[in-house]
Amino acid sequence: MNQATDKRPLVVFTPSGKRGNFEVGTPVLEAARALGVDIDSVCGGRAICGRCQITLSEGDFAKHGIRSTGQSLSAFSKVEERYDQKRGMKQGRRLSCQSKILADVVIDVPASSQVHKQVVRKRAEARDIDLNPVTRLYYIEVEEPDMHKASSDLERVMLALKEQWDVHDVALDFSLLANLQIVLRKGGWKITVAVHDRSLRSIIAMWPGFHDQVFGLAVDVGSTTIAAHLCNLSTGEVIASAGLMNPQIRFGEDLMSRVSYVMMNPGGEKEMTAVVREALNELGQTAAREADVAVDDILEIVLVGNPVMHHLFLGLDPVELGGAPFALSTGLPVSCPARELGLEFNAGSRAYVLPCIAGHVGADCAAVVLSEEPYLSDDIMLVVDVGTNAEIVLGNKDKLVACSSPTGPAFEGAQISSGQRAAPGAIERIRINKDTLEPRFKVIGSDLWSDEDGFAQEIEQSGITGICGSGIIEVVAEMYLAGIIDADGLVVGAMTEKSSRIRQDGRTFSYLVHDGEPQVMVTQNDIRAIQLAKAALYAGIQLLMDQLQITSVDRIRLAGAFGSHIDVKYAMILGLIPDCDLANVHSAGNAAGTGARIALLNGDAREKIESVVRKIIKIETAVEPKFQDHFVDAMAIPHKQHLFPLLSQIVDFPKVVPGKSVDPDTVSDGRPRRRRRKR
Amino acid sequence: MNQATDKRPLVVFTPSGKRGNFEVGTPVLEAARALGVDIDSVCGGRAICGRCQITLSEGDFAKHGIRSTGQSLSAFSKVEERYDQKRGMKQGRRLSCQSKILADVVIDVPASSQVHKQVVRKRAEARDIDLNPVTRLYYIEVEEPDMHKASSDLERVMLALKEQWDVHDVALDFSLLANLQIVLRKGGWKITVAVHDRSLRSIIAMWPGFHDQVFGLAVDVGSTTIAAHLCNLSTGEVIASAGLMNPQIRFGEDLMSRVSYVMMNPGGEKEMTAVVREALNELGQTAAREADVAVDDILEIVLVGNPVMHHLFLGLDPVELGGAPFALSTGLPVSCPARELGLEFNAGSRAYVLPCIAGHVGADCAAVVLSEEPYLSDDIMLVVDVGTNAEIVLGNKDKLVACSSPTGPAFEGAQISSGQRAAPGAIERIRINKDTLEPRFKVIGSDLWSDEDGFAQEIEQSGITGICGSGIIEVVAEMYLAGIIDADGLVVGAMTEKSSRIRQDGRTFSYLVHDGEPQVMVTQNDIRAIQLAKAALYAGIQLLMDQLQITSVDRIRLAGAFGSHIDVKYAMILGLIPDCDLANVHSAGNAAGTGARIALLNGDAREKIESVVRKIIKIETAVEPKFQDHFVDAMAIPHKQHLFPLLSQIVDFPKVVPGKSVDPDTVSDGRPRRRRRKR
Repeated sequence: MNQATDKRPLVVFTPSGKRGNFEVGTPVLEAARALGVDIDSVCGGRAICGRCQITLSEGDFAKHGIRSTGQSLSAFSKVEERYDQKRGMKQGRRLSCQSKILADVVIDVPASSQVHKQVVRKRAEARDIDLNPVTRLYYIEVEEPDMHKASSDLERVMLALKEQWDVHDVALDFSLLANLQIVLRKGGWKITVAVHDRSLRSIIAMWPGFHDQVFGLAVDVGSTTIAAHLCNLSTGEVIASAGLMNPQIRFGEDLMSRVSYVMMNPGGEKEMTAVVREALNELGQTAAREADVAVDDILEIVLVGNPVMHHLFLGLDPVELGGAPFALSTGLPVSCPARELGLEFNAGSRAYVLPCIAGHVGADCAAVVLSEEPYLSDDIMLVVDVGTNAEIVLGNKDKLVACSSPTGPAFEGAQISSGQRAAPGAIERIRINKDTLEPRFKVIGSDLWSDEDGFAQEIEQSGITGICGSGIIEVVAEMYLAGIIDADGLVVGAMTEKSSRIRQDGRTFSYLVHDGEPQVMVTQNDIRAIQLAKAALYAGIQLLMDQLQITSVDRIRLAGAFGSHIDVKYAMILGLIPDCDLANVHSAGNAAGTGARIALLNGDAREKIESVVRKIIKIETAVEPKFQDHFVDAMAIPHKQHLFPLLSQIVDFPKVVPGKSVDPDTVSDGRPRRRRRKR
Repeated sequence: MNQATDKRPLVVFTPSGKRGNFEVGTPVLEAARALGVDIDSVCGGRAICGRCQITLSEGDFAKHGIRSTGQSLSAFSKVEERYDQKRGMKQGRRLSCQSKILADVVIDVPASSQVHKQVVRKRAEARDIDLNPVTRLYYIEVEEPDMHKASSDLERVMLALKEQWDVHDVALDFSLLANLQIVLRKGGWKITVAVHDRSLRSIIAMWPGFHDQVFGLAVDVGSTTIAAHLCNLSTGEVIASAGLMNPQIRFGEDLMSRVSYVMMNPGGEKEMTAVVREALNELGQTAAREADVAVDDILEIVLVGNPVMHHLFLGLDPVELGGAPFALSTGLPVSCPARELGLEFNAGSRAYVLPCIAGHVGADCAAVVLSEEPYLSDDIMLVVDVGTNAEIVLGNKDKLVACSSPTGPAFEGAQISSGQRAAPGAIERIRINKDTLEPRFKVIGSDLWSDEDGFAQEIEQSGITGICGSGIIEVVAEMYLAGIIDADGLVVGAMTEKSSRIRQDGRTFSYLVHDGEPQVMVTQNDIRAIQLAKAALYAGIQLLMDQLQITSVDRIRLAGAFGSHIDVKYAMILGLIPDCDLANVHSAGNAAGTGARIALLNGDAREKIESVVRKIIKIETAVEPKFQDHFVDAMAIPHKQHLFPLLSQIVDFPKVVPGKSVDPDTVSDGRPRRRRRKR
């Protein structure tokens, strides 16, 4: 029947625009389901969950072909009143399961009532997260056992899911089976089940009666810190965040020392696996406590981490990652009951681990890719996650290439004489007067510059204790811009005449940033360490640019803590990253954590990143002869200024004084040896 | 190209008849694969496994369109010689992977070289078992890691399976992941994997290098005994059988006392689950030891059992099965890692539990159905598994109905004054002289009748200790045929005059079978117990016959130990089973065990029985008002002789003397109360 001639009321849903004619008295939810309109519901139309709220649309109905203008929905019912009193509804909202269609009507489905809603991200340049939960709740009323119809409890549960929700072909996680009788009888044959819909569609949890909310944990297992977001799986909201130090630190400060620990102590990976899993359990408990939810309501956990962390939380021996050919045991995505990883949330909870990209490019990098979406970009995007190894991805929707580069820990303030972690007392910003060579700086814990009134008071507590990663970048870049170091990175001895801050230190010279207790100095060795790190990073990027045969990039995203704190301009002055319009260079924040969160909230995103990772072209820097050449070329500050036309427009570079070229032997001696290299 | 005009040699495979033309030099195995001819191979054509043996067919080639008569296969190669020396080959056999096609040829694939071979069953009326293994072995050569091609160990394993075996979309059992590195390196990148191909196709085990054989355990968990067959999964052969007493007996002799134990001791099911699982592990170890195979090579276990046993080995509370409405927690098939059932074979081994049919008709009965295949029969088949509850299935390929009937333990010799288990010393056969009323009998442990020479010596060791189940049936039937009891089952007091073996015993009379230490007597109570049991069995069968609206059955299969030992004629004389041509009444032996073995060896059989069980119509005797009527009717011996026209032709029934009708109150008092009945 044509909608215009159909005498039954016409119902139009916005924003979907879906429309159809229904008998007078049809509940709105039923009409929505029949049309495939996305309206959430856990209770299945029993006025319990309140997820299916809609509003009567106002505005120009005529454009929708609406004819009637009379009362289009049944009056606010007693059932709705009760729900409103008990749990509250916004003015004008109706429960679609209780509102019956009386005449032509336009129904607005607010975002909060949609299953596939969007979770807004704060960063301007980042897309919102589409919610597409892998685990959904279904309230069902199960038939009681009846001797006349032999059918087991489980079969009647399956039947209820099929009849009441059209959910077919479901398995039951075996571990739940023993509890089924109890839950059914405790709930008086009314229960809520959580169905996990991946490869094998399974019931992974169940509760007597109506159960409203379930949660998931998105975790980035870093070498130093483990950070978790606890998310509501139906709203997508982060309801608590928690972090703790990776307890594996006691086996080794950095990745390679942990791998070495296992080399020296065969089987030692088991200890590290145990402590990291314990930490994950603790983290889940902490987050649940903070958000005041039951640990038992955590049904999913998504894990990311660099390859060594990935292997350790999965219980795999990471030794192979410590030497050529750097073979991952598995790089494939892992989907398994969380209990198999020793995780103690709901007994049926599921773990998902993103795929690794390559032996040094981990699941954390895959998560960064999922967060930053270079695979959707028309522009060439460079995505860099700087850690002890920088993980680098370059390309656009046509092609992505990836590698890792052994930057070492200098960017994190390690191996730097006055270096320290980003903590109160650390210098994080610095400017050097080109005439006087006097510095002014900012210290974590105060918003004031060191030459502003009140600075001394504000930092009284912490004092000035060192320079953190972002401060190191700025101070070396500023020293270069002020002429204290030349393009080769050598502190120019002649500068001692210009300022007493330049001090001889054996055969080399240092710059005194702050004369206190402790003295904060930048030594020639510090500069060399930064040069090695930034040259490694740049060489990796250059290798990928060679691969794509490009000489510039359109957009840059810097992920991770380091990326969040550095001033991208200084990163570019120093030559960490290639030339780019600064307006297109952004911090991606904790992109690995965000990527984990996206995978937690969206099943399609898991498939997407799995297919993207399969297609990424992996470059092993250790076997690329050009890496060494790029590395040597990139030692200068900023190397090959002609490569930075955009930056040169806004930064007043010193004239390049041809200095001594860097001795290649020094380079290959001094560079951080993160891997045994096979040449 | 037409085969006749194709100049390439024509290859014809028998018995499949598949044919095709191939280039000169093509290995026979390759040609077979290309044509989809079923030839087994684990090593994939590397002359290691010897599974792919073929013979050059002799006989009339012309009928196959064979033109050439020259040398059709390459000569017996060095590789084949080596294999022959090492492992031996039958005369005339060739390794198809090493034999190259030179000219037109007819190749015979012997059954032993087929994956889908048949396992011969001994029973004449039983079909052979088609082998269609769920778990198959694949030997693969995995690429070594290469820095130029980033790919994890697992990905290269998957690639090898795909490239070398065309096996796609395989998952890896998570529990194996940690071992993958070790196995690959130990095997020098040559490994054998076991792929389990059900719902999720998964690698469930792996070994360094070539691994030849894997095994499976088919187990029937009975209330009294647990019996297991250890089978070779590629040949289907039973290589060891083992049995042990169900250790749950210490919680209660029969099913209901075990259920009562849980009622009295909530949580007590956990103890019973633990002991039965321990017994299953022990059984696997015993069988493996006996067959001299490693427990670690047991990759599959198939379990069947009655509903209470089923619930207990799955770890489910059986209390619901103890009372109306007799609700199974699950009757669905269970497929899970064996470790989830606490079974300690290979770490990745899988368990499969057949579906239950109804609250009193268990997975053991489903296995009996799978063994006896009434669902394939044109004739109406009655399949009865007699235990404490008789499980009864009736019908043919069009329709099957099932029920259970509370026969109680009388058929097993319990509740019988001189009853005992079938063991040396037990009377198992008996004949009573109609004139003298003197008995002659056989005792377990001797092949002689008691009136034959040498009998006394043969049984000297055991003595004569009682009557077992099959003996009880015969003695009561013979007493009836000899006129010692009337059609109502009353011992005729007047018989005391005829023989001193008829003795008064209070208000009733008994029959003395053997006057020794102990005395073996059949009392009026014993006869009553047998009457109650056989009436319950017959009433159940009658209910199913009503359901199908039939009055006779074409074939009868009696499963279980009781069914194996009784003389079917006496079972019919006594009216345990309906009238039927005795030529069509057979013992099905341990059909539950056989059904478990079929499910173990054939994946399609699992699907088949799952779908058959879904379609079986379940009758709950407890709620069928006619059950009581049938039960009362069936008390007489043999009740309603007109229902036994076939039997009457061969048995000389006494003339029916209208006796006292059985008092219904006595009946309902005396019948074994196995369940609380809802009327």
